[in-house]
Amino acid sequence: MKKLTEEEIYKKLESLQGWEFDNNAIHTSFEFEDFKEAFSAMVRIAFEAEVQQHHPDWTNVYNQVEISLSTHDAGGVTEKDFKLAESIESIINAGE
Amino acid sequence: MKKLTEEEIYKKLESLQGWEFDNNAIHTSFEFEDFKEAFSAMVRIAFEAEVQQHHPDWTNVYNQVEISLSTHDAGGVTEKDFKLAESIESIINAGE
Repeated sequence: MKKLTEEEIYKKLESLQGWEFDNNAIHTSFEFEDFKEAFSAMVRIAFEAEVQQHHPDWTNVYNQVEISLSTHDAGGVTEKDFKLAESIESIINAGE
Repeated sequence: MKKLTEEEIYKKLESLQGWEFDNNAIHTSFEFEDFKEAFSAMVRIAFEAEVQQHHPDWTNVYNQVEISLSTHDAGGVTEKDFKLAESIESIINAGE
């Protein structure tokens, strides 16, 4: 899986909402009503990540979830990250 | 819920395994076989946290889980944190 160039990454970020590129990864964060809602979204994302065999680096504090995606083997951001980012967006949007 | 003194915290840490006190919170980390094992443990901890109405600050990267416990309202570590820490230990030990 080939590491994308910065130009490719910024172009692809245009089709996502609220993601940023920084420090060789793409990042987003979500705020939910409470812990239960936040963790429920994480469970749905976890199943999808396992299907894709590509996993987020993420942090949860009560109702907040911060997610970073990068492809460790490639040393940067690849198509795999954007595929998972799109799935995360679909999951979050479906829950609203 | 009263904030514990450092002396009380260090005393209580003796009955836990692999937890440290730093920066007004108690911390531990676990490494699992893979993401599925790590996240499965997180699910079990999440249910217990919800029961206790006290939630961890935690980060997951593939098979690793880092957990910090503090009581935000009290500005430090309280009995609530040790109760949850003990539950986390039981959950992890039950899974081994």
